[in-house]
Amino acid sequence: MNILFIMYDQLRFDYLSCAGHPHLHTPNFDRVAAQGMRFTNAYVQSPICGASRMSFYTGRYTSSHGAQWNGFPLRVGEHTMGDHLRKAGMDCWLIGKTHMAADADGMARLGLERDSLIGARQAECGFDSWVRDDGLWGYGPDGFYDSKRSPYNEYLRAQGYEGDNPWADFANSGVEDDGDMASGWMIKNADKPANIAEEHSETPWLTTKTIEFIDQATAPWCAHVSYIKPHWPYIVPAPYHDMYGANHVPAPLRHDAELDDPHPVLKSYQNSKIATLFSREDARQKAIPAYMGLIKQCDDQLGRLLEHLENTGQMDSTMIVLTSDHGDYLGDHWLGEKDFFHEASVKIPMIVMGPRVTADGTRGTTCDALVESIDLTATFIEAAGGTVPDHIVEGRSLMPWLRGENPDWRDYVISEYDYSAREQCVQLGLEPRDARLFMIFDGRFKMIHAEGGFRPILFDLETDPDEFHDLAKGNSHQAEIDRLYSHLGQWGRRLSQRVTKSEQDIKDMRGKSGRKGILPVMYDGSEVPAELTQKYRGPAPAKNKGTA
Amino acid sequence: MNILFIMYDQLRFDYLSCAGHPHLHTPNFDRVAAQGMRFTNAYVQSPICGASRMSFYTGRYTSSHGAQWNGFPLRVGEHTMGDHLRKAGMDCWLIGKTHMAADADGMARLGLERDSLIGARQAECGFDSWVRDDGLWGYGPDGFYDSKRSPYNEYLRAQGYEGDNPWADFANSGVEDDGDMASGWMIKNADKPANIAEEHSETPWLTTKTIEFIDQATAPWCAHVSYIKPHWPYIVPAPYHDMYGANHVPAPLRHDAELDDPHPVLKSYQNSKIATLFSREDARQKAIPAYMGLIKQCDDQLGRLLEHLENTGQMDSTMIVLTSDHGDYLGDHWLGEKDFFHEASVKIPMIVMGPRVTADGTRGTTCDALVESIDLTATFIEAAGGTVPDHIVEGRSLMPWLRGENPDWRDYVISEYDYSAREQCVQLGLEPRDARLFMIFDGRFKMIHAEGGFRPILFDLETDPDEFHDLAKGNSHQAEIDRLYSHLGQWGRRLSQRVTKSEQDIKDMRGKSGRKGILPVMYDGSEVPAELTQKYRGPAPAKNKGTA
Repeated sequence: MNILFIMYDQLRFDYLSCAGHPHLHTPNFDRVAAQGMRFTNAYVQSPICGASRMSFYTGRYTSSHGAQWNGFPLRVGEHTMGDHLRKAGMDCWLIGKTHMAADADGMARLGLERDSLIGARQAECGFDSWVRDDGLWGYGPDGFYDSKRSPYNEYLRAQGYEGDNPWADFANSGVEDDGDMASGWMIKNADKPANIAEEHSETPWLTTKTIEFIDQATAPWCAHVSYIKPHWPYIVPAPYHDMYGANHVPAPLRHDAELDDPHPVLKSYQNSKIATLFSREDARQKAIPAYMGLIKQCDDQLGRLLEHLENTGQMDSTMIVLTSDHGDYLGDHWLGEKDFFHEASVKIPMIVMGPRVTADGTRGTTCDALVESIDLTATFIEAAGGTVPDHIVEGRSLMPWLRGENPDWRDYVISEYDYSAREQCVQLGLEPRDARLFMIFDGRFKMIHAEGGFRPILFDLETDPDEFHDLAKGNSHQAEIDRLYSHLGQWGRRLSQRVTKSEQDIKDMRGKSGRKGILPVMYDGSEVPAELTQKYRGPAPAKNKGTA
Repeated sequence: MNILFIMYDQLRFDYLSCAGHPHLHTPNFDRVAAQGMRFTNAYVQSPICGASRMSFYTGRYTSSHGAQWNGFPLRVGEHTMGDHLRKAGMDCWLIGKTHMAADADGMARLGLERDSLIGARQAECGFDSWVRDDGLWGYGPDGFYDSKRSPYNEYLRAQGYEGDNPWADFANSGVEDDGDMASGWMIKNADKPANIAEEHSETPWLTTKTIEFIDQATAPWCAHVSYIKPHWPYIVPAPYHDMYGANHVPAPLRHDAELDDPHPVLKSYQNSKIATLFSREDARQKAIPAYMGLIKQCDDQLGRLLEHLENTGQMDSTMIVLTSDHGDYLGDHWLGEKDFFHEASVKIPMIVMGPRVTADGTRGTTCDALVESIDLTATFIEAAGGTVPDHIVEGRSLMPWLRGENPDWRDYVISEYDYSAREQCVQLGLEPRDARLFMIFDGRFKMIHAEGGFRPILFDLETDPDEFHDLAKGNSHQAEIDRLYSHLGQWGRRLSQRVTKSEQDIKDMRGKSGRKGILPVMYDGSEVPAELTQKYRGPAPAKNKGTA
């Protein structure tokens, strides 16, 4: 049994035809959904790449693993999906992006070298790396955003694309009418075709790398295939660049009520540059067709992968998971990017095609249970035949749902966001540690708590599924708020760091100390079994030396 | 500047003459208090040896470091006092007990060997070990409780004490009238003198080891001198065995109201063997004089240390800290041992004699601020000239108090207890993860929250300083309870795992990505400074290969 764990970056939950998109046809996603189960209430642990991914890859909440924003290193020694799967006898490989920042200080403190097997896994979030490319080869006055080597740029140069950074100059740029480069960083260029042969663009390249991996791999394996797309820059090569147009762009999901005395943290997001940009209809009409084209390309490349699995007879022995690290506001709620907790940002596609007959009863169904991204680590451990170490992994296996069971399940999902490195923290005059948000959603009510002395935000998705009306304004709905704070308090007290003792370890250690001579309970020995008061300590005591 | 960080095991806060004990005269403790500051509201992070110590040694709450009970290993990589002090240029040595369990699995996973410098520090809670002896050489049908070597047992054998375990047979046993060994594990023997020369008993031995350390050490150093006493077995050599008698034993601090419909968790503690034992007045009258004798011996040995510092001219350059890892119920509240949150158990002595003139203004004073044991790590880092990494260390430096300042301070203290390995967990039918208690005390109200669906416990120490009356019975005092739960919720959301990025690191990283080419905010480039849209990426783009 193998696991193909495919992640698309910044793919909204509702930009798939199986999820109801009116214009975007994604037959390959739909095919996996038809052969598997689509989870319709799946949420990320943080709506930002790095933090979200560290939760996917550890099965732990962001405030449990501590890598709470992009570039915050995952501390050395944190248990990962790879650690757990290898223990269960399954390799765990990376093909693509992780956004992992290695804990270089921690590794140095423990004497770990990156070129050792142990050190490399520590530096790569527990994966063995088939190919790693985070796909953000930004370059500016201070150099490259990502200081690692770029296998994709190396590939492009080998194909004849010139320069230091063909990722930027070709794969993510178009061409002006006058022949100048038209940067994909500028939304005005989003309707131009990227200046690259389609088969050389990022998504086909990574798909080819995946096929190369599959063709040489020995089962059982887990491969994390991690596409950078449809993440910005919003530009896509022909023929995808003009498949969609203004008539395919949905009206923005926003309401004037959202601008009426908004919560201070939300307001600071509404005032950001990205929000201002995506509040412009011309920007949306440029970006969204490109975004859809990128998704369409992902779907076609998924078709390549599925066909390859079929052709090599591996379809029945492979669990396929399709998901994303967060969504994309695309102008909804007067916002752009992700970074906040409306459904467009925090909800993700989650399609799981279970292998073998265990999942036959649920093929083609949907499940509306409250799923968290951390559940995948637990799911994969169970699928690999391991036992989920629930003192480390905070997620829960989805396998019972795939088997058609109706397990006791969580009552709420949690997502977090640390905006300490963002301009919003500065604007609000907060210290970094207070720039933290917590979302709790119980399936109906969604509350967002902000540290730093702010009131919460509350949405009722039953009466207001579009999340336009913040019910916490004017100190309203206090009973719901109190109830959700009580749950949040319970979550805050969760057992998350006792990673060195399992529940079973603890049961096994009970009552052992008495049989090892620790007996602070005796007046005269009658309190304990006679065998425990025997003199097990060797020869009889010598003469009292103390008073001799 | 050096730090002598002295811990006594299981020393109650009120069993010192400077703290008002009516019969026990401890002139050497009092002398340090007279030259320093005595903190009268100091609390441990958990009233149990191992968990409490891991908090002292990391400066972090037990649910932050995860070593939540005796024998739960401190996970590899956790930052310790030793790590922080060495970074500030100060060595950090251990002389005595830590109750540290090494994370052997974690060390193996990271390839760390115990016989390397890095591995040894990981295994010894960050200390360099001058001598480690945890002082609990219990031995029973299943062998030794502690599987390490015992330097103290080796010492005793070198002095001519016979057998495998002279710690048990001599240092912690007396002699019956008929010459048989009278085990110190039995309270009935607590009034007998231990069968050992006083100078060979544990407290003088460790004091001698400390003097040997001081005489060879090069400043600056921190030495954690960690006595096992006055921890049980309750037996002490002559002349300390009969210094105190029944007339020096205070009446137990207990009330029939405590037995009237007690909280289920408290009730299970009241029903334990140790509680039953210490509810017997004959047991108290045997144990408490021995306990007092052990403290008196500690005081005399402290005198030896102080005299040595004086004689070697190091008194003015040494910060001296006297504290304990928790108290001892001694029959108060119908309980024995520690393990719960009444003042007898969770409050500790905390005397800090600051070096140099900085502390001159506060010498001989007391401070009633709410102090936590984790504050010492922060205090020592500041004393050593370092900067407290407040993204790792959760305690706060006491130095402002010593300087006579009046800092903004915490509003409540937290203590925790994990009883998952205890019989109480089984009796209450709980899974291990639900056998956890949280105490929050704001200086007046003390609330104890129990996971597992129980109501809380509430004491008002202003109207009921003896903590006899649980105000949470009958759903009373809901407003205070709600307020304390709100604080506990805030604490639960604390920033505790983002250990790879400091507050300053985060401030420094702001706004950097734009200058490295990450610009998802542009429609046409007018949104950002012109320099950021320059083509920093090398040569001009080649011909459009995609559509060529």
